[in-house]
Amino acid sequence: MRFRAAILGFCLAASAAWADPQKAAQLRDAALADGTAWSVLESLTTEIGPRPAGGPAAARARDWGVAKLTALGFANVQVEAFPKKAWLRDAEAGEVVSPFPHKLALLGLGNGIPTPPEGITAQVVVFDTLEALKAAPSSCCTGKIVLVNQPMTRTQSADGYANAVRARSAAPLASARGAVAYLVRSISTSTARSPHTGAMQPWKAGERAIPAAALGVPDADLIAHMAAREPVTIHLSLQSDVSDTTAWTVSGDIPGSEPKTGTIVIGGHLDSWDSGTGAIDDGAGIAITVAAARLVAATPHRRTIRVVMWGSEETGGSGAAYLAAHKNELGAIAIAGESDVGADNVYGLQLPAGAWDAADIAPLEAVLAPLKIMARRTPPEDGGADLEDIHGAGVPVFALNQDASRYFDYHHSQDDTLAIVDPGQLRQNVAAWAATLSILADTSFDFRKTKK
Amino acid sequence: MRFRAAILGFCLAASAAWADPQKAAQLRDAALADGTAWSVLESLTTEIGPRPAGGPAAARARDWGVAKLTALGFANVQVEAFPKKAWLRDAEAGEVVSPFPHKLALLGLGNGIPTPPEGITAQVVVFDTLEALKAAPSSCCTGKIVLVNQPMTRTQSADGYANAVRARSAAPLASARGAVAYLVRSISTSTARSPHTGAMQPWKAGERAIPAAALGVPDADLIAHMAAREPVTIHLSLQSDVSDTTAWTVSGDIPGSEPKTGTIVIGGHLDSWDSGTGAIDDGAGIAITVAAARLVAATPHRRTIRVVMWGSEETGGSGAAYLAAHKNELGAIAIAGESDVGADNVYGLQLPAGAWDAADIAPLEAVLAPLKIMARRTPPEDGGADLEDIHGAGVPVFALNQDASRYFDYHHSQDDTLAIVDPGQLRQNVAAWAATLSILADTSFDFRKTKK
Repeated sequence: MRFRAAILGFCLAASAAWADPQKAAQLRDAALADGTAWSVLESLTTEIGPRPAGGPAAARARDWGVAKLTALGFANVQVEAFPKKAWLRDAEAGEVVSPFPHKLALLGLGNGIPTPPEGITAQVVVFDTLEALKAAPSSCCTGKIVLVNQPMTRTQSADGYANAVRARSAAPLASARGAVAYLVRSISTSTARSPHTGAMQPWKAGERAIPAAALGVPDADLIAHMAAREPVTIHLSLQSDVSDTTAWTVSGDIPGSEPKTGTIVIGGHLDSWDSGTGAIDDGAGIAITVAAARLVAATPHRRTIRVVMWGSEETGGSGAAYLAAHKNELGAIAIAGESDVGADNVYGLQLPAGAWDAADIAPLEAVLAPLKIMARRTPPEDGGADLEDIHGAGVPVFALNQDASRYFDYHHSQDDTLAIVDPGQLRQNVAAWAATLSILADTSFDFRKTKK
Repeated sequence: MRFRAAILGFCLAASAAWADPQKAAQLRDAALADGTAWSVLESLTTEIGPRPAGGPAAARARDWGVAKLTALGFANVQVEAFPKKAWLRDAEAGEVVSPFPHKLALLGLGNGIPTPPEGITAQVVVFDTLEALKAAPSSCCTGKIVLVNQPMTRTQSADGYANAVRARSAAPLASARGAVAYLVRSISTSTARSPHTGAMQPWKAGERAIPAAALGVPDADLIAHMAAREPVTIHLSLQSDVSDTTAWTVSGDIPGSEPKTGTIVIGGHLDSWDSGTGAIDDGAGIAITVAAARLVAATPHRRTIRVVMWGSEETGGSGAAYLAAHKNELGAIAIAGESDVGADNVYGLQLPAGAWDAADIAPLEAVLAPLKIMARRTPPEDGGADLEDIHGAGVPVFALNQDASRYFDYHHSQDDTLAIVDPGQLRQNVAAWAATLSILADTSFDFRKTKK
């Protein structure tokens, strides 16, 4: 029942070799003609929509995940609850009061504090870079609103984001300089008006918390243009609520024939930000890994593949919850990987050190080459935000690197919808995952015994 | 005073030949190093922002235009008032009520009627194309909300828009089939959430007026996805006001040495839609033509160049007002051209039939070639919306064709801001206009005596 060879249109002999590149290539090609990922993603974005952890749609998303995994033939479908201190947005507004009145496009930052109900009105101090704020004297910003207007560099990897996103947690630097609120240019490569939200690091004991929000890129520039003429005064009202709620990890298995050889843990996160429908962040990660695992289900394979839908990535917590729930069985996880950079083409596969030299893994390079994916000899620094905790506790990780060039045009904004997903690139992702999973599920290589 | 050769950094001998390609080439090169257009555009978008005809910012925009033309040394700066029945947006909201509640991104269409204050709640009928609506029986849509969800094709010319925009005025087709409201997928090539507004044709006598709005592209798709599952019910509230106001045409002249050889009328429109800051539609047209004319001012030239800032293009009226105000002097207009497709590179110049064969115009082809602009032998169909009326009354027109590939990603939406303007492409426009104006101002060719 769970092994659906018939619907794939091809059927492999049960006697196929383990870690068989021919089997991997057939899965790759089947994936390129398979509509499952699109169908899963269309279902999630149409039927559930935005689904922040702790919000009312989160439970509906959980039920959707259970139903979808069950309908697709996954075994051992499970829900694990964990406590979640949820940050949820309430009414937000901002405007330039003078010199040129202008309504601002903004979104409060996750884990931020609200303004007083009447809002905050103050003059703005604009810094062109984060470093300029760091270099500013402690007296620079007393009673002012700080704006850091540093543009983000477009990169194929997520490096541009990693560099720019530091400004999203720079409110404490502004606070330490006397600011009454903190604004950041959206961490985005887009020039569209929609603001891009995201979490900031929670305020620490001893820090003076101030409200913080992200401005749409054109509005951040506009304030800078105005400020070059004369003082700019802004009014901000940012409301939000924090409450103790529950979040959930949903998972389902594709059983292998030799479960004692270890489980492969893969997946994406089911929670999303609240302004789009969470298609690329991270409905796509769920759709890709579900579809790929389901294809592998149709072939004989040794290791069990567990697909996990983590329930609180955006504001944090699901990786730690997964570690807490599975800390006594980490040794049984052979390797783990997460898909969480959208739906554009995969361009590289990173494996733990030494793995590409294994005789029954090396042929994977030729299987991935037609997809224009390179075998990268550099091991992954991490396997995704939800894997950080178990990786830190010793679980090996792999990374299928997705092209992030476009990703940060949409990420964390209302523009993250199904309309930006390219069906052909989505299928390329599934093909990459299916071929890779096939080899990882059967290889005799031990990922824990790597060259460092 | 008005001839500012000094600031251009070069000075041409007053004895230079008329319609001199060397002079045109020098103006082209000066334009590529000139920041005037950017400065004008930054000023308009920063200091004035959105400026619909009849709205409170229109008078500020008028005053800005007068001040800017005066400061830049234009002569004969004029304001011509004309009556304007203004359509202005008020509160608008829409949502999917069932099966999957979802807040809609929408903008009412200009010239549309409001809903009742309590709004309209009805089931949606989705048509994938405008032709499908036309083919639908008269009973198809009684009591329903019609959605035409036809995607727009991306083209370099404005052809994709011309084809798609017919759906924006299709509310009468829905009304004739019993619909209670009309929704159209935004006329845009973008996949961003922001809706793209625009005017619809005013309701005609005998037609049953119904409210009409444009949906953001992803939301139009989302409704189609939901409707494929089960009936979709939507609530709409669209408020707007119509009032008798005044609009203005602002103009200024670069005087020529032989004004009796006729005036060249160029410009862009000063009004904009209300959601962005009107950078590409059409602050850019004003910035480009002002900057180009100002460059020509520094050289000896025969014809006077009049730069016009038309005051009501988006909801109509300024072209007709210009004809009415100047109908007795149309013979004194040698030729006219408008810049109104944004700020991306010019790729072609269209002149009235036969003009490219004129001995003192033909060398312009070689002047424009380094800008990658081709001499197009097909005469322009029109010279821009604000020139339609005087063109219909016999005034010859030319067209510097702008690359529209990106334009309809932003046009009529909140994403039309300075952030999407490429300074290098903006200067290429100024170079194309300056070189072209130089030749047109001096040629002995009579554009009214063309081969048909």
